[in-house]
Amino acid sequence: MGHPRLAVDGVIVIDGRLVTVVRGQPPFEGMHALPGGGVELGEAVEAAVAREVLEETGLRVAVERLVGVYSEPSRDPRGHTVSIAYALRVIGGALRAGSDASAVDLVDPNRLPPMAFDHAQIVSDFLAGRPRLR
Amino acid sequence: MGHPRLAVDGVIVIDGRLVTVVRGQPPFEGMHALPGGGVELGEAVEAAVAREVLEETGLRVAVERLVGVYSEPSRDPRGHTVSIAYALRVIGGALRAGSDASAVDLVDPNRLPPMAFDHAQIVSDFLAGRPRLR
Repeated sequence: MGHPRLAVDGVIVIDGRLVTVVRGQPPFEGMHALPGGGVELGEAVEAAVAREVLEETGLRVAVERLVGVYSEPSRDPRGHTVSIAYALRVIGGALRAGSDASAVDLVDPNRLPPMAFDHAQIVSDFLAGRPRLR
Repeated sequence: MGHPRLAVDGVIVIDGRLVTVVRGQPPFEGMHALPGGGVELGEAVEAAVAREVLEETGLRVAVERLVGVYSEPSRDPRGHTVSIAYALRVIGGALRAGSDASAVDLVDPNRLPPMAFDHAQIVSDFLAGRPRLR
């Protein structure tokens, strides 16, 4: 029996605007998404989300709080991937698109564009201010 | 590059006593631990923790809240395993040892016996009442 993959996603709000990446590859190519990606072997999840956000947005971040754990088996069409979502605060860097994303975009978290995966749910849970329980 | 395994652990308090299992196999054989285990492909994490707790303790449980995410690469000597810990409430069943555990034991959560893995930290975070951040 296989095992689910583990990923992390980051919620970053700067002056009331949510930091998103516009996906440069399938699935959900061209759609907005939270910055994030897979956790590597030997890497703590807090380090993984900081690494992915830096790679994709140019921002250096620290973990502020846990938003929730997202594990519906169908949430990623590539296969079962469990994502741990964190609210992050910016501690350095400068916003720019990284190699994995075609663009970064600041959006209104209360009026989201169509979002990849279940990222609209993650933002909704972030705005509600508490970890999500099913 | 490999990926970390994903596990779940459950914190259950009944009449002020913490439900633990006494491990029947290495690592940490003979030590107390929280009930829990690996997440299977196609299984949501909330379902995984309920399944593992039922298997190991006989208790039917529902998720009350997220305690934290534990991902230090060295926390499990068998290899990098990220565990998601939930506080659970009992909704049925009856306490009995399951196949994976040699015994179940109710302990004082404020005066823990030596615990396997980082489970003493999980209980401490549970008692503090908020998700742990490093």
